Amino acid sequence: MKRSDRLVAITNYLVDNPMELTSLPFFSSTYNAAKSSISEDLTIINKMLQQEGIGYLESTSGASGGVKYVPSYSKENSERFIQRLRTQLEDPNRLLPGGYLFMSDLLGEPSTVRAIGRLFATAFSDMEIEVVVTVATKGIPIAYAVASFLNVPVVIVRRDPKVTEGSSVSINYVSGSSRKIQTMVLPKRSLQEGAKVCIVDDFMKAGGTINGIRDLLSEFNAEVKAIGVLAEAEDEEEERVVEQYTSLVKISNVDVKNKHIEVSKGNLFE
Amino acid sequence: MKRSDRLVAITNYLVDNPMELTSLPFFSSTYNAAKSSISEDLTIINKMLQQEGIGYLESTSGASGGVKYVPSYSKENSERFIQRLRTQLEDPNRLLPGGYLFMSDLLGEPSTVRAIGRLFATAFSDMEIEVVVTVATKGIPIAYAVASFLNVPVVIVRRDPKVTEGSSVSINYVSGSSRKIQTMVLPKRSLQEGAKVCIVDDFMKAGGTINGIRDLLSEFNAEVKAIGVLAEAEDEEEERVVEQYTSLVKISNVDVKNKHIEVSKGNLFE
Repeated sequence: MKRSDRLVAITNYLVDNPMELTSLPFFSSTYNAAKSSISEDLTIINKMLQQEGIGYLESTSGASGGVKYVPSYSKENSERFIQRLRTQLEDPNRLLPGGYLFMSDLLGEPSTVRAIGRLFATAFSDMEIEVVVTVATKGIPIAYAVASFLNVPVVIVRRDPKVTEGSSVSINYVSGSSRKIQTMVLPKRSLQEGAKVCIVDDFMKAGGTINGIRDLLSEFNAEVKAIGVLAEAEDEEEERVVEQYTSLVKISNVDVKNKHIEVSKGNLFE
Repeated sequence: MKRSDRLVAITNYLVDNPMELTSLPFFSSTYNAAKSSISEDLTIINKMLQQEGIGYLESTSGASGGVKYVPSYSKENSERFIQRLRTQLEDPNRLLPGGYLFMSDLLGEPSTVRAIGRLFATAFSDMEIEVVVTVATKGIPIAYAVASFLNVPVVIVRRDPKVTEGSSVSINYVSGSSRKIQTMVLPKRSLQEGAKVCIVDDFMKAGGTINGIRDLLSEFNAEVKAIGVLAEAEDEEEERVVEQYTSLVKISNVDVKNKHIEVSKGNLFE
């Protein structure tokens, strides 16, 4: 196969299989080229991925060595994306009673969700995360986006047990904003003991939900390595119960009466 | 920029922006090359995408013309993927009381979900679908995967209204398997009047849920162009109420007592 053909094929392969170590002999035999030619291809691909600000190739030498694509977002791409998101979120028509923000349209755009996933994956890429955990419903697309870049599975905590999940572990917790007792459920066979996980969600006020997930995960002896929320907002009624987390945007000065809202960069950019 | 560099960059751009028409002048100015060179690049990329069985480039001429990447799965790739899925689903340990199948682990793998999305996108690519609709919870990852390849937004029907969604339209329907009256809700501002949609879900027995979604969508005068379900199974208690649909696998002869199950190819392959 010619170099030009190989470059297209290998780029595709790597981008479609992020964080997966592939050996040079695999590329050699698949694309019928000498290892030295494949090495040169990978040098070109690595240079271009970095130039486009979407990641880089990591090489490991030795018998079990190979190359893997580490997706990441350059500072410039990240800033540009968050700037656009802030402008979109500051639209006063998004304000809902209770100081909530309508975000379903943005979270319905696959390209926006993928960019959010890429940002979290960039932040969490060296934490050896094995599973991405979220709670139904709005965190699900974000969780899949993060997981696709980290190349790990997603586990979804539910508010109600389902017959199609088999036996499960459940906990009760008090929601910060509504002060109601709520339930969270995770099927027993969905998570291995001691897994290293990150938790992601779309919105965090006091953090009651995230804390609930953490309690539930402790039943599985899971190790929570990172917490990521798309938007954090202050809760006037309750102090924050989650301390270590990464947010992409921060919502403040919500004034439902005068239809005003401020959206600034989250702590990822601090 | 050199051809080898451009091939990597343009491949990345196209694969990251499926179904989006991009003009040749955009590539010319972004990668600093003559239109004729870009044309040659695109010919190479198109050839390789087809050779790898993951889609093709579609060119439109004229002033508003350009090129777009149409993701699709070759027959060979599709068959190979479904064969693997069938083997995985036939594992008797997946059987749950009531003849349900534990699939959360497979639906938790981003690469599996992406392949499912690619298959549906291939089947629906010429239907001019504007929105992918699903119902919480298990259909959500599949919906995003389909939507990412079709480059359209996702709208999620819920079983319960949420304060963070604003005013909404709801309907009641009778679930086939439980015979219970259930509710479905869609926020008013989530879907435009007359949108062309496809409905996707993970599992269909009699089809009561899909029918419920269809009823709800008719309140928005939406045009249901296609229905896709990952797995269809027979319901002994009720006749199927949905006729036109695309399934990837078919579950039959479920014998909970003897822990036996058969999984065959869905009607997509007929």
